[in-house]
Amino acid sequence: MSVIVVGTMAFDAIETPFGKTEKIVGGSATYVAYAASNFLKPVQQVSIVGYDFPGEEMDELKSRGVQLDGVEIVKDKKSFFWSGRYHMDMNTRDTLITDLNVLADFNPQIPESYQGAEFLMLGNLMPKLQKSVIEQLRERPKLIVLDTMNFWMETALDDLKEVLKMVDVLMVNDAEARELSHEFSLVKAAKKILLMGPKYLIIKKGEHGALLFHGDEVFYAPALPLEDVFDPTGAGDTFAGGFIGHLARTKDVSFENMKTAIIVGSALASFCVEKFGPERMREITKDDIDKRLMQFQELVSFDIELV
Amino acid sequence: MSVIVVGTMAFDAIETPFGKTEKIVGGSATYVAYAASNFLKPVQQVSIVGYDFPGEEMDELKSRGVQLDGVEIVKDKKSFFWSGRYHMDMNTRDTLITDLNVLADFNPQIPESYQGAEFLMLGNLMPKLQKSVIEQLRERPKLIVLDTMNFWMETALDDLKEVLKMVDVLMVNDAEARELSHEFSLVKAAKKILLMGPKYLIIKKGEHGALLFHGDEVFYAPALPLEDVFDPTGAGDTFAGGFIGHLARTKDVSFENMKTAIIVGSALASFCVEKFGPERMREITKDDIDKRLMQFQELVSFDIELV
Repeated sequence: MSVIVVGTMAFDAIETPFGKTEKIVGGSATYVAYAASNFLKPVQQVSIVGYDFPGEEMDELKSRGVQLDGVEIVKDKKSFFWSGRYHMDMNTRDTLITDLNVLADFNPQIPESYQGAEFLMLGNLMPKLQKSVIEQLRERPKLIVLDTMNFWMETALDDLKEVLKMVDVLMVNDAEARELSHEFSLVKAAKKILLMGPKYLIIKKGEHGALLFHGDEVFYAPALPLEDVFDPTGAGDTFAGGFIGHLARTKDVSFENMKTAIIVGSALASFCVEKFGPERMREITKDDIDKRLMQFQELVSFDIELV
Repeated sequence: MSVIVVGTMAFDAIETPFGKTEKIVGGSATYVAYAASNFLKPVQQVSIVGYDFPGEEMDELKSRGVQLDGVEIVKDKKSFFWSGRYHMDMNTRDTLITDLNVLADFNPQIPESYQGAEFLMLGNLMPKLQKSVIEQLRERPKLIVLDTMNFWMETALDDLKEVLKMVDVLMVNDAEARELSHEFSLVKAAKKILLMGPKYLIIKKGEHGALLFHGDEVFYAPALPLEDVFDPTGAGDTFAGGFIGHLARTKDVSFENMKTAIIVGSALASFCVEKFGPERMREITKDDIDKRLMQFQELVSFDIELV
């Protein structure tokens, strides 16, 4: 059982109301890999980095069963760098710097050794590149999950719509769901988006949890109310990694099991925000994860009696 | 088993992005009574109206087991009138008109026949009046629930703090919890507020559901994702009515049963927003409520397997 993860491996510099970091490791594929590697091996990474991406980070990922054959290292360029400042609500942020560097040349190549993977997680990336990855796979994975963002809706909508027809699960946040569908009601938005291709839609609402839509069914996963949200960077990717990690581990892509996968993703994301960058993701154990899953169950369990 | 409900019975004129109404019946105690009367009789109303409040509305409420002995009718004044316009998100609104009318003279009097009630729902009102109601009760109710709003935090904070010491459950929305506690994190806010007196705190988050805090425990109730939110007016009061109605019916004020009560409140509120004013609340049957409770259970149920 393997999962291919496509996305960025990069540097971030982050300011929040509670502190700031120098350049630290980040990137969507980094967070997905840290989360998913709690559930299965191998995680097969596809990304691009520059000469400055730390070897220790590569070693750490390898020790967790993350394969890096699909990570291109560009010897004379720097890694992608993003810097941003979060507002008090931790849901909105200003981008301060975006240095594409190697990302400008990213043309993901699937290594021969990755062929046959049953799960594919397409991190947020130019839709054309996401499509090219799908087309390189000789056997269609059992499940393709795609993350995207408002930027591509505004600059590459046609390409995005094309790749949407090829995937099973789309993950977006609430603002993006509204933008993509031109509907304010998330229920109406979901109905429209499910007509665009994906059979499942996950709408992430940050501290307000996440919704899973499939046909006429809907599932509401809470977010764990946290005393401190230290740094939300990577929380969405960590959620995605936990989600696909659970599905791949259990080899079950039913709606019922996707509900559980969303809870697993939410639990992982609740760790991610506790420290800057992926730091907390390096620390947690299976036992920590199990305890938090029990907290989620406590959080929403209730008995119902009919009137 | 009886519940005393204190609050406004009034007129509203409402504009939403989807339509507008002329003057229609509203008021916190009206909504609470409609909701609670699905669960128990009598609901013992304490309010004040002018000569213009419709007799048919009084008759409708009476037919549902709502006692009106505590509703003062002022022959030469008009009922309280509020007019507002909701923004697209339906969570924020501008007040266009507030005509206090009879409300300026409101001095709630508990009729002798209401003495001995086991439950007390104090709708949003000047904290001094809320306190006066509690002091008029010769026997302390088994459970006192208080609703309030930011206006009183800004204009009568000392009075509010005094009455908070006398109640069991406080209901506020997320912005109000932050304002009252001076904490952005709702978990931190809850900790501070629980030190102010109430043993239970309910934080209402509109379309994002509601949180119940008690000691170190927390429960997250989802809101039902709705295709259309037609008019949110009264949804919070309807939630309160369902909450206290369920508790009074089951005579069980444990944390576990409060979770169920919040789901019941959320189910009732999900009806309220489907039409303007309390119209939908007049239509629904026990069967409708049961069906919606089952939907809530579906909405959040998941199986967890440990890693």
